[in-house]
Amino acid sequence: MAKAPVLTPQADDFPRWYQDLINKAELADNGPVRGTMVIRPYGYALWERMQQEMDARIKKAGAQNAYFPMFIPQSYLTREAEHVEGFAPELAVVTHGGGKELDEPVVVRPTSETIINEYFSKWVQSHRDLPLLINQWANVVRWELRPRVFLRTTEFLWQEGHTAHATYEDARAYASHIHTEVYGDFMTNVLGIDVVLGRKTAKERFAGAINTLTLESMMGDGKALQMGTSHELGQNFAKAFNTQYLSNGSEREYVWQTSWGTSTRMVGGLIMSHGDDNGLRVPPRLAATQVVVLAIKGDDAVIAKVREIGAALEAAGVRVVVDDRTDTPFGRRAVDWELKGVPVRIEVGPRDLESGTAMLARRIPGGKEPVSVDALAALVPGILEEDQALLLRQSRERRESRTVEVKNIEEAAEAAATGWGRISWAELGPEGERKLAEQGVSVRCIVAEDGSVPDADDQPGNVAIVARAY
Amino acid sequence: MAKAPVLTPQADDFPRWYQDLINKAELADNGPVRGTMVIRPYGYALWERMQQEMDARIKKAGAQNAYFPMFIPQSYLTREAEHVEGFAPELAVVTHGGGKELDEPVVVRPTSETIINEYFSKWVQSHRDLPLLINQWANVVRWELRPRVFLRTTEFLWQEGHTAHATYEDARAYASHIHTEVYGDFMTNVLGIDVVLGRKTAKERFAGAINTLTLESMMGDGKALQMGTSHELGQNFAKAFNTQYLSNGSEREYVWQTSWGTSTRMVGGLIMSHGDDNGLRVPPRLAATQVVVLAIKGDDAVIAKVREIGAALEAAGVRVVVDDRTDTPFGRRAVDWELKGVPVRIEVGPRDLESGTAMLARRIPGGKEPVSVDALAALVPGILEEDQALLLRQSRERRESRTVEVKNIEEAAEAAATGWGRISWAELGPEGERKLAEQGVSVRCIVAEDGSVPDADDQPGNVAIVARAY
Repeated sequence: MAKAPVLTPQADDFPRWYQDLINKAELADNGPVRGTMVIRPYGYALWERMQQEMDARIKKAGAQNAYFPMFIPQSYLTREAEHVEGFAPELAVVTHGGGKELDEPVVVRPTSETIINEYFSKWVQSHRDLPLLINQWANVVRWELRPRVFLRTTEFLWQEGHTAHATYEDARAYASHIHTEVYGDFMTNVLGIDVVLGRKTAKERFAGAINTLTLESMMGDGKALQMGTSHELGQNFAKAFNTQYLSNGSEREYVWQTSWGTSTRMVGGLIMSHGDDNGLRVPPRLAATQVVVLAIKGDDAVIAKVREIGAALEAAGVRVVVDDRTDTPFGRRAVDWELKGVPVRIEVGPRDLESGTAMLARRIPGGKEPVSVDALAALVPGILEEDQALLLRQSRERRESRTVEVKNIEEAAEAAATGWGRISWAELGPEGERKLAEQGVSVRCIVAEDGSVPDADDQPGNVAIVARAY
Repeated sequence: MAKAPVLTPQADDFPRWYQDLINKAELADNGPVRGTMVIRPYGYALWERMQQEMDARIKKAGAQNAYFPMFIPQSYLTREAEHVEGFAPELAVVTHGGGKELDEPVVVRPTSETIINEYFSKWVQSHRDLPLLINQWANVVRWELRPRVFLRTTEFLWQEGHTAHATYEDARAYASHIHTEVYGDFMTNVLGIDVVLGRKTAKERFAGAINTLTLESMMGDGKALQMGTSHELGQNFAKAFNTQYLSNGSEREYVWQTSWGTSTRMVGGLIMSHGDDNGLRVPPRLAATQVVVLAIKGDDAVIAKVREIGAALEAAGVRVVVDDRTDTPFGRRAVDWELKGVPVRIEVGPRDLESGTAMLARRIPGGKEPVSVDALAALVPGILEEDQALLLRQSRERRESRTVEVKNIEEAAEAAATGWGRISWAELGPEGERKLAEQGVSVRCIVAEDGSVPDADDQPGNVAIVARAY
C-alpha cells in the first residue's frame, strides 16, 4: 500500500498544495483580522535571509536606510491625483487615538511616497543634496478582498526605496540599476528564480508613476507572479509636495524621483517556484539552514558523531543544524526536514559508525547515498552550489517550455491557460489588452525583441508577455 | 571673540540641548501626526547596529524571530483585566478598512502579549513544545500625550520577546537570563552605558506581569531612564487565552510566561548618556562609522592618501568612511562629524603628505595630535577599545557621584533634584512611594543590599533607588 501523501499533490489542486505546504512546513498561519498573517519562525527565517541579501545590495547601490511614520495624514494621500485614486479603496483608517476621536483621521501607510516627499521637500535644498537615496524596511497595509497568505495580505512586510535626482536621466538610470543589479541579481542568484525583466503597460503602472519596471516569474502552475517593481515617478510627487532644489545655475527645479519595492510576497514566489509534492526546496544561498545532521538513534556515540560532523561543516563555512532530538521518531523528523526543504540531510545511525559513513540525502535533485564522513566537509559546499544552479535551471526550463509564441487574442488566452503567451505588442495594443483582461489574462510586461527592457512601449519589435497572474 | 556654540549648552537647558543635537546631527525629525518621528539615516544606523548586536544575543539565548499582525481584535485586549486597564488609554483604533466601517474595530498593537497568546495556545500542545521562545522586531503604537523624540513617541520600533515554559522556575530563570545576559551585557559592553539592574515595585510593574525586572540608567542631567524591561507574566495570559500543555504525567497545565522589550528609546538614552556640548559621542563597538578619514583639500595626492588610509584601516577591521567631499569647506565637515560623534577623525592636508603624518582627533576623550600614517592601522583599534571603556567609566562615575544615601522622604526628594537617592525599601514602602510620586519622583527599582537583583520586595536590606525619570 502506498503511503498517503503528506501534501495534496500539485497536479490535483495547486492552491491547496500551496496552503498545505505553508501549514505543514510551519511557515505561516492566518491572522485573526481578515487578510493578516502570522509569519512563523521557519517562514520568518526565509524573510530574514532575503532581507540580509537584499539589504547588502541596496547599500551597495548607495541607498541608506531610514524610518518614516506609518501614520499618514489623510490629506497627504490626496495631493497626487492618480496615487489617491489607486490606493483609496485599500486604505485602513485610524479615527480614534488615546481614547478620543481624532481631528483629522490618519491612514496606515499603503506605501510611503507621500510622507517621504513631505520630508524630502525639507531636506533637499541644493543640487549638492542630490541624489538622495533612501530605503525603508517596514510593514504596510492594503485592505485585501481576496487575501492569500504571503501573496496578497492586508498587512505585509517589505522594503521601499525612494530617491530624488537632479535629472530625468539620472532617475531613470537609478530605477534601472535597482531593477537589474539589485532585484534581478538577488532573485536570479540567491533565490534561484528565473525572472523576466520588462516594463509595465500604462494600464498596469504604479499609481503616480511615469514608468514601471517589473520582474515576472512563472510559478509551478504556469501562472505569473510579479516579484518586484521599480518605478520612475517623474516629477509627479515633486510637484505635489514642492520638492525643489537650487541648480548650479541657481534656478529652482523640481527633482526627478524613483521608488521601488519587494515584499514578503517573495516567500510565496519561492514556495511556488521551487516547491514539490514533498514540500519546499530552499536554495542553498538563501537557506538559513543548508544542512541538517540527524542522529537516527539516541546512542551516545551517534550523538557525539553528529555533533562532530556539524562542527566540521560549520568550520567549512556551511550553515548547519544538528538534530539530536531522538525522543521524536527519526522518520517524523526526516519528513519534517524534507517538508521544510533543507537542501542536504546527513543521517547517522549506529551502523554508520563502524563503516565511517553517513547517509547523504539531497532534497533538491532528490536521492540518497552513503558517503565517507571524512569527505563531508570537502564534498558539501560543492553540492550546495550544484543544487543552487539546478533550481535556477529548472525554473528557467519551466518558463521556456511553457511559453508559446501567439498571433492573436484567442491564441493568447489559450496559452495563458497553461503558461505564458508572447505576442507582438504592436499587434495586441491597449485594446487587445482590455479584451484579454475580461478573460482574466493580463499583460505581465513588455520586452524588446532581443529580450532586453525596452525604452518605450512603441519600440518596434516589442513583445507583450501575457498570462494569468497571482 | 568666542565662537557661538553649535548646540544650546547642556548646563543652560538640557532638554533643549537634546532637541538641538537631534536636529543638528540629523538623527530624527518630528512626524506630521502628533508624537510620531522620522528616523533619519544617521539615527537609523544607530538603531540598526543596536538591532544587530541585540539580535545576535537574543538568538544565542535560544529565541527565534517571528512576525505577528499589528492589527489586534479589540476583544483580545480585554481578556486580561490588568492589561487592558494599563493600555486602554493609549490605543489607536482602526474603524474603517477598504472603504467600509469594520464590524469589529481593531487596535494597532501597543504590545503583542494578547495576539501572541492566541497562537501559543494553538502551537503548544505537549511539554515537548516547551520552552517556546519567540522574539519579534516591530513597530508599536501608544498614543502619547507628552511625546519626546526617541524617548516617548506614539509609534516606536522595538523588539518584544514572548516565551512559554513548563514551570514557574524555568520562566523566572529565562526572564532573568534576558535581563542580565542579553540586555545587561549589551547595554554595558556595547552601548557603554552604566545600568542598574533591579526589580520594579508593584506600582511600576508591567500591566499583567507578576514581576518586572528593569535596567535603569542615569542620564547627563541626573534623571533616570528605563532602558529595558523583562517581565515574568506568571499564568495570567495563559489563563486568559487557555494556553495549556500536556505534562509528562498527562495532566493539562497552564504554561508560565515571560515577555521582554527594548526600543528606539535606547537611542535617546545613548544621546543623553554620552552626548556633550559638541554633540553625540558614539561608543566604538556600536558605531557604524568608527573612523572618518577627511581630506582637508581637494588635492589629488591628498585624495589618494585618504583613500589609502581608509583601505588600510578597513583591512585592519575598522569600520571607516572616507570623506573626500572637498567642495564643502573642511571646517564645516569637521564640525558635522564631531556633532555626529564618530569616535576618531583622521585629517590629511597637503603638508601632511611630506611629513608622512596625519592629524588624529579623538572625539571621546577629546584632543588632537599628529601621528605617523604608517602607524595608524596598528594604533586605531587600541584607541577604539580605550574609548569604549572610557565611556562606560564616565557613565558609571556619574551615577556613583550623583547618588546619595538618604533616610527619609524629604531627603529622597532632595536627592532626586540633582541625581538619585538610595533609601531602605522597608523604610519607604508603598506609602512613601505614593508620597514621592506626588512630587514627580518615582522608585526606579529595588536592589538587594549587595547590589544584586532581589527575589522579592520584602527581602531584608532591600534598597529603593528613587529619581525623576524620563
